[in-house]
Amino acid sequence: MFGRTKKKKTYENPHIARLIEIVGEKEVLHEQGDLLSYDCDGFTVHKAMPKAVVFPKNTEEVAAVVRYCAANDIPFLARGAGTGLSGGAIPLNNEVIISLVKMKHLLSVDYENRQAVVQPGFVNLKLTNSISDKGYYYAPDPSSQYVCTIGGNVAENAGGAHCLKYGVTTNHILGLEVVLPNGEVIEIAEDGVPDSPGYDLMGLLTGSEGTLGIVTKITVRILKNPEGKQTVLAYFDRVEDGSRAVSDIISAGIVPAALEMMDETAIEGVEAGAYPVGHPDDIEALLLIEVDGITAGLEEQIEQILKVCKARNVREVKVAESEEERGRWWANRKTGFGAMGAISPDYLVQDGVIPRSTLPEVLKNISDISKESGLRIANIFHAGDGNLHPLILFDSRIPGETEKALKAGTACLKACADVGGSITGEHGVGIEKKEEMRFIFSDEELEAQLRIREVFNPDDLLNKGKLFPTPSRCMDVKKIVKDTVAVK
Amino acid sequence: MFGRTKKKKTYENPHIARLIEIVGEKEVLHEQGDLLSYDCDGFTVHKAMPKAVVFPKNTEEVAAVVRYCAANDIPFLARGAGTGLSGGAIPLNNEVIISLVKMKHLLSVDYENRQAVVQPGFVNLKLTNSISDKGYYYAPDPSSQYVCTIGGNVAENAGGAHCLKYGVTTNHILGLEVVLPNGEVIEIAEDGVPDSPGYDLMGLLTGSEGTLGIVTKITVRILKNPEGKQTVLAYFDRVEDGSRAVSDIISAGIVPAALEMMDETAIEGVEAGAYPVGHPDDIEALLLIEVDGITAGLEEQIEQILKVCKARNVREVKVAESEEERGRWWANRKTGFGAMGAISPDYLVQDGVIPRSTLPEVLKNISDISKESGLRIANIFHAGDGNLHPLILFDSRIPGETEKALKAGTACLKACADVGGSITGEHGVGIEKKEEMRFIFSDEELEAQLRIREVFNPDDLLNKGKLFPTPSRCMDVKKIVKDTVAVK
Repeated sequence: MFGRTKKKKTYENPHIARLIEIVGEKEVLHEQGDLLSYDCDGFTVHKAMPKAVVFPKNTEEVAAVVRYCAANDIPFLARGAGTGLSGGAIPLNNEVIISLVKMKHLLSVDYENRQAVVQPGFVNLKLTNSISDKGYYYAPDPSSQYVCTIGGNVAENAGGAHCLKYGVTTNHILGLEVVLPNGEVIEIAEDGVPDSPGYDLMGLLTGSEGTLGIVTKITVRILKNPEGKQTVLAYFDRVEDGSRAVSDIISAGIVPAALEMMDETAIEGVEAGAYPVGHPDDIEALLLIEVDGITAGLEEQIEQILKVCKARNVREVKVAESEEERGRWWANRKTGFGAMGAISPDYLVQDGVIPRSTLPEVLKNISDISKESGLRIANIFHAGDGNLHPLILFDSRIPGETEKALKAGTACLKACADVGGSITGEHGVGIEKKEEMRFIFSDEELEAQLRIREVFNPDDLLNKGKLFPTPSRCMDVKKIVKDTVAVK
Repeated sequence: MFGRTKKKKTYENPHIARLIEIVGEKEVLHEQGDLLSYDCDGFTVHKAMPKAVVFPKNTEEVAAVVRYCAANDIPFLARGAGTGLSGGAIPLNNEVIISLVKMKHLLSVDYENRQAVVQPGFVNLKLTNSISDKGYYYAPDPSSQYVCTIGGNVAENAGGAHCLKYGVTTNHILGLEVVLPNGEVIEIAEDGVPDSPGYDLMGLLTGSEGTLGIVTKITVRILKNPEGKQTVLAYFDRVEDGSRAVSDIISAGIVPAALEMMDETAIEGVEAGAYPVGHPDDIEALLLIEVDGITAGLEEQIEQILKVCKARNVREVKVAESEEERGRWWANRKTGFGAMGAISPDYLVQDGVIPRSTLPEVLKNISDISKESGLRIANIFHAGDGNLHPLILFDSRIPGETEKALKAGTACLKACADVGGSITGEHGVGIEKKEEMRFIFSDEELEAQLRIREVFNPDDLLNKGKLFPTPSRCMDVKKIVKDTVAVK
């Protein structure tokens, strides 16, 4: 024969060769240098190297990679944009990472039935941007929404500032296509019709942190833009007055679209950051409150909010006078975590949930934890739904200070659990809070969940070692079933 | 000794004696005559006799009965008020029925955090009645709400007319205490703090039709009464115009609290029933539309609704002028099913869900099914969320007509499934629609659910033979696990 024969590359690792056959040579990273960026996600305290990273382009390729891994006992996990804050996408077991960033398309929009179908790698904010000209938007708005993917949002059941009124991701998912850990593909309510009979697999998958299956297609609810919005900024001399105002606003029958709070340290941080708005430097708390809906109803709600704030000794309260002013307030809030970098070399963000009425008590406890640890703690959080974000400021260059910060973080979560709260609102458990699961679940309650995991995942190859306390229980299904039916 | 010794009764069946030891003699029914009222629920087509009915008074007694049944291989199931419409509480396997009607207390109300804790036998409407003086209510409102229990609502994930805006039961459940089929008691988010980490067991239990566990305590969300309500009644000459108006209202960005529809035959029925309101007898459709919220915003929504109706050739449209008039319209709608008794000796109610935009097409198909079967079909339903209720009118005294009605019912569900819909919106699958599950789930999708059932319920003693197509798969967990990991 004439012409040059293209030489077929050979790989030391036969698994790499097979993965390349499945997804194509350009879609597999396997050299050490290329893998380095995949050794952690938004939780940077732990690092571990993957075996390879593959970039499937469709459901069939995801299923084929999964089937190959399952048949060869190779651990694997899915990854979106890698913005998760609890380490859910870190390859603790030298996993093959299945990156979904090339499955990044908006597949269809059905305005009449108010649904859109997206691939898992589609970026959250792009959905709103794609439909806003028709007057629609997608409600869940994590602060990372300009980069995080909807697949990752499903895995973590992501929240955001506007989830007080509109609910978190699980409230906006209408259908899922899922590759199970054995490579089987199932569709759950694929046409987005609500109230499907049978067990709520959609709810089970949403927020399962990538431990039950890999989502390859998502039908989401889209909402019509509210006719109007009004945004209020309120400054309080005393943090307790601000906390009480939060409960009072809800008790008055108002459900704001967002009800955010920052304390003194947080305000110092955001004012030193990239988007300062000129908050006073001597207040203990500010509230950022937004209401939306039919324009005619907003004025009345704003009046009630102002009345509540005044009754709680507000120092100053103002309503945004333009979309530009509103935008500046929100940029100041939404970049708040990063802004802490301006006042501290390092920070650890925590994520606890408490009953709204215990806000004053828990903020006091966090302040005590700060004093005891000698570390400053900033609070910048979704006050309306009781979702706290204590930011523990520390300097990792000082020996022992990282450990001190981790300890203070755990103490904050304990303070939330102790008032009947939860250890995570929206950032997930991942590897960061596995042990803290014991704060809120009994052994029986953890076992009920582990049994479900084992059903989907009997060989524990998918995202192993996440979400539940270590050591994981052994995978003896027969024994578990026997235990289950034993009469106690 | 002096005095009379109370003779201890003996029972032929040793199980009865033991059940009496657990809950007390007055709390066990075991004689044939007493058991007769428990041979069916709101789905009266099938009947079967229970072994006994027990009435536990607290969680410990429920758990003890369950442990006893599990240890002795006795099938058992839970029952609330018995108003379920799909046969979920029928003792197909001579079950011990665990009736929860004596666990009927409102345990606590926390207005500040907007939660109430109830026992499963607490009647739905009593919750709203108990908190209305403080200005609060419980949103899910099945038509049977004056008698059905919240425990039953959780089992069936009950809906209601006002679920279009406020969501179904699962959207209002914040915590559950559950007795598992082995007698273990677990609490899920017992303090009602949202966004608990781990798997969404609460979602999984809600709507599982009593096949995964027995709910013994429920934390529910309570809502502040909306400041105002406005209700519209619109009459259409043509059913297609009414259907299109439904989609147009939603597309206009309005989310009504309720958006109900009745067709010509349904109107004939309700006008012949106990609560006539004088609807014209020559229209093809009426819409009952309610908006609620801040009073100032309602007028604008009503104007938009009137505009949409006019654009769709409405014959007449009116706004309720008093709470009394509004109440009459709702009584006419909410007693609609029963009213069919005035125009037909028997009726079979079906419950399908469709994408809202397919309403005209599916109503046309149902009309064809009516013509083909020779049976009249009335439609009275939650149009806003595409939840159809075809009522098939028949006369069971005519040989073969019951079978004809059942066949027409199945055809209606098939018509819903064929446009991407579902076979039940709120009535559940029970025993009525087990086979129809195949219309919407593949074998793999049914298996994924069965595997979950087996984990909770390895001996298949709890509410056996419900929810999934018969014959149930055998309970060989090892084989299932092996199948699961087999590479396909």
